[in-house]
Amino acid sequence: MEITINLKTGDKVPMYEQIYEYIRDEIRNGRIASGERLPSTRSLCRHLDVSRSTVELAYEQLLSEGYIESVPYKGYYAAQIEGLYQLTAPQGEAQTGSGDEREKYLYDFTPSGVDLNSFPYNAWRKLSREALADDRSEMFRLGCPQGEYGLRNAISSYLHQARGVNCTPEQVIVGAGNDYLMMLLCTILGSGHKVALENPTYRQAYRLFANMSYEVCTVDMDAKGMRTDRLRESGADIAFVMPSHHYPLGTVMPIRRRMELLGWADEEEGRYIVEDDYDSEFRYKGKPIPALQGYDGSGRVIYIGTFSKSIAPAIRMSYLVLPMPVLERYRERCGFISSTVSKVDQLILQKFIEGGYYERHLNKTRALYRSRHDTLLASLKELKIPVRISGENAGVHLLLHFHDGRSEEELIRLAADCGVKVYGLSEYCVNGESAGSAEGGVNTADDDAVILLGYANMNEEKIREAVRLLGRAWSITADQKQNKPLKTE
Amino acid sequence: MEITINLKTGDKVPMYEQIYEYIRDEIRNGRIASGERLPSTRSLCRHLDVSRSTVELAYEQLLSEGYIESVPYKGYYAAQIEGLYQLTAPQGEAQTGSGDEREKYLYDFTPSGVDLNSFPYNAWRKLSREALADDRSEMFRLGCPQGEYGLRNAISSYLHQARGVNCTPEQVIVGAGNDYLMMLLCTILGSGHKVALENPTYRQAYRLFANMSYEVCTVDMDAKGMRTDRLRESGADIAFVMPSHHYPLGTVMPIRRRMELLGWADEEEGRYIVEDDYDSEFRYKGKPIPALQGYDGSGRVIYIGTFSKSIAPAIRMSYLVLPMPVLERYRERCGFISSTVSKVDQLILQKFIEGGYYERHLNKTRALYRSRHDTLLASLKELKIPVRISGENAGVHLLLHFHDGRSEEELIRLAADCGVKVYGLSEYCVNGESAGSAEGGVNTADDDAVILLGYANMNEEKIREAVRLLGRAWSITADQKQNKPLKTE
Repeated sequence: MEITINLKTGDKVPMYEQIYEYIRDEIRNGRIASGERLPSTRSLCRHLDVSRSTVELAYEQLLSEGYIESVPYKGYYAAQIEGLYQLTAPQGEAQTGSGDEREKYLYDFTPSGVDLNSFPYNAWRKLSREALADDRSEMFRLGCPQGEYGLRNAISSYLHQARGVNCTPEQVIVGAGNDYLMMLLCTILGSGHKVALENPTYRQAYRLFANMSYEVCTVDMDAKGMRTDRLRESGADIAFVMPSHHYPLGTVMPIRRRMELLGWADEEEGRYIVEDDYDSEFRYKGKPIPALQGYDGSGRVIYIGTFSKSIAPAIRMSYLVLPMPVLERYRERCGFISSTVSKVDQLILQKFIEGGYYERHLNKTRALYRSRHDTLLASLKELKIPVRISGENAGVHLLLHFHDGRSEEELIRLAADCGVKVYGLSEYCVNGESAGSAEGGVNTADDDAVILLGYANMNEEKIREAVRLLGRAWSITADQKQNKPLKTE
Repeated sequence: MEITINLKTGDKVPMYEQIYEYIRDEIRNGRIASGERLPSTRSLCRHLDVSRSTVELAYEQLLSEGYIESVPYKGYYAAQIEGLYQLTAPQGEAQTGSGDEREKYLYDFTPSGVDLNSFPYNAWRKLSREALADDRSEMFRLGCPQGEYGLRNAISSYLHQARGVNCTPEQVIVGAGNDYLMMLLCTILGSGHKVALENPTYRQAYRLFANMSYEVCTVDMDAKGMRTDRLRESGADIAFVMPSHHYPLGTVMPIRRRMELLGWADEEEGRYIVEDDYDSEFRYKGKPIPALQGYDGSGRVIYIGTFSKSIAPAIRMSYLVLPMPVLERYRERCGFISSTVSKVDQLILQKFIEGGYYERHLNKTRALYRSRHDTLLASLKELKIPVRISGENAGVHLLLHFHDGRSEEELIRLAADCGVKVYGLSEYCVNGESAGSAEGGVNTADDDAVILLGYANMNEEKIREAVRLLGRAWSITADQKQNKPLKTE
């Protein structure tokens, strides 16, 4: 066989690569058949008028990728590749943009907002600069799978002091967000569990458990939170709750219900309570409600907390606090899984907490949210809309309960028509089941509609203006039913 | 009932909190029995000589936490909490330190090392400063679950050009490390799969699949990689392979075996190949071996890559490239799972790639590793040890095959006695099964022992000195068998 290649000398592509590509394509196309003997490197270099090492380089590449085979003392042969699989061209079709289809709203009462104007940019920048100073290669070496000890220590001190959580740094696992940590938790606990969640609940948690192949169910709430009698009936062995401030209802689980829940967990080996303590930093009446974990004497509560609400969603740092039996399982089953947070980010956060920046930032944000909260309540009270308010003592949203026959859908549409985006409670209900039963103050069975208003993202002026628009959107015309007065509780 | 509290006026603890804590503890201890009526706020404030609002604040806190109940027009009553669950004190026992039990080795030939002295600190610092400039709140808002479009675009361009991967940015999922992305992949594909891995293999992957409740098995390798006949027999529907550079053997899968593998995937609906392309950046002979993904015409290859090897382990950024059918499943089942990488870090990496820093860094590291590679090979050849070398054309480690009757364990111990840490191939074998069969050049069935030497972490001087020590450690005394000459292939 003789191979003639139209080599381009002035080309960017090196000579050996042109030879390699030509022969490769000939073999792919079948023009050089399998088993066919290739010219020796010596004859080919003479034929092409290139150096012998150029041809040797090309043959070596063809050999490494398996297009040709070398038979000692005989030479090079095209490998047998045809007929196995059809090699093809790129399959990807380009799609446009990143799909940022923001609708045209003047105001958005999103309940998952966070004020980012108050983000402590200067402090973060300073700590970030410090973390990267001095070319410390230690910062870029793989760290502890659980998270760096310094950060875990800072978190456990903070949790002890601010949330009444009893833990050592050894029990803390730092991870890149709640979603990841829930996935990790499922991997730690293994399959075969049934998880009970409140209804309504944080739907992200519900979907995650379901996707991790856990059996999931919802358990009715009353004014005190998840009903333990129903929990017992459900057959679940894991209860996912938000005792300090339920999302989205804002319910605080009273001590009696907490103890019932701990009692439930203690009844059988292997039962656990997952406590999602997502935003307990913001409370407008009295001290923060202590975490359920602090009451747990027998290692039944798995605590999950996050800096997404209290610092910023995009910093991607959350933490699990594992009770001893689960910590042992973690070490056995998942201790080898690398950390999901970079060391640099961990160090920044650690210094942010230790240096008092976190506390100052929390105080600042608390004051900010309180003022928005007060403005929203005051503005709502001025409206002549028959509505009851709940969930207003903590967090960054409140609920409006309507009893005038209008549906959630209708109220959302009316608000949208005036340029205001509001959110319906049904978004948080699983499988369209109704939210809660009819015993207490926060539940909704007797409501025609429940609307959520989040205020973290809006300043006072915007809140007043948006509520004025809502007043117009939701006003009840003369031919509609009697106006019930607005009441708060 | 009359309550007398020893209030400390000069104390840091606010008055209302002292009252709250006292009554809470009395109720917890049962000294205030359930159902017992508490003094009215008016009488208690007079009795304690504090303002009425102080007492009201304390009662509100007790109410929120459920220790007391309010009965309209009657007053406050202690709630029933006893007998349900014993509240207890902190359960955590402090453990010491973070367990950094570094042993006393002079030299460590770890195969998973990365040179961090060459980390581009200045560029990273500069890009990091730029990312945080201008108080851009956008940087701290929750981003796209798949990763930011800009970074995905930079990754897909790089992959196309450097690895022959065919993909659009829409197919790329950025995540915090390979371990996380493997967990995510299992969640995308759902349960009920059987994964076949090579043996030896990257054990982290094996354990991850097993912990995600996947059925796992190993499939024999020959000199071309995973045997497709054995794969077919295994009944697996997912094959996890490292075709461009097998870890730890260094095998390159030739084109024919690649096509056989793609053919296997094409035989039945739902079969997939996971291609772990972990370190193909480093190759010392010819061009990089293109990725298997580039040959895939029917959407069967799931590609996973990482910046842990090519930049630094602690930056925690890896990526999946999903074929269309898997991408659709991702969107349906896991599209709601938040990204695990902070936006700031994503922007830094994007600019690092786009600004040409990545390519420059790769070139620098490649030259560095090549020089260490050459030094190691040269030093080994000077030794009078009967050993065969393999896997030396790529990556950052090579393998030494011993045929002198000594076991892996013995060789590791002898090296350790001279202060040098080396690694045995058996660490990478699953369930103690032997590594590979006896057909080709890289397999080990005819070896008494195989030792891995990684050189990424050591400079030339250290390599020479460490090899000198190994020569002493492994020298065969006169009364031992005949010295076979050292040969490389």
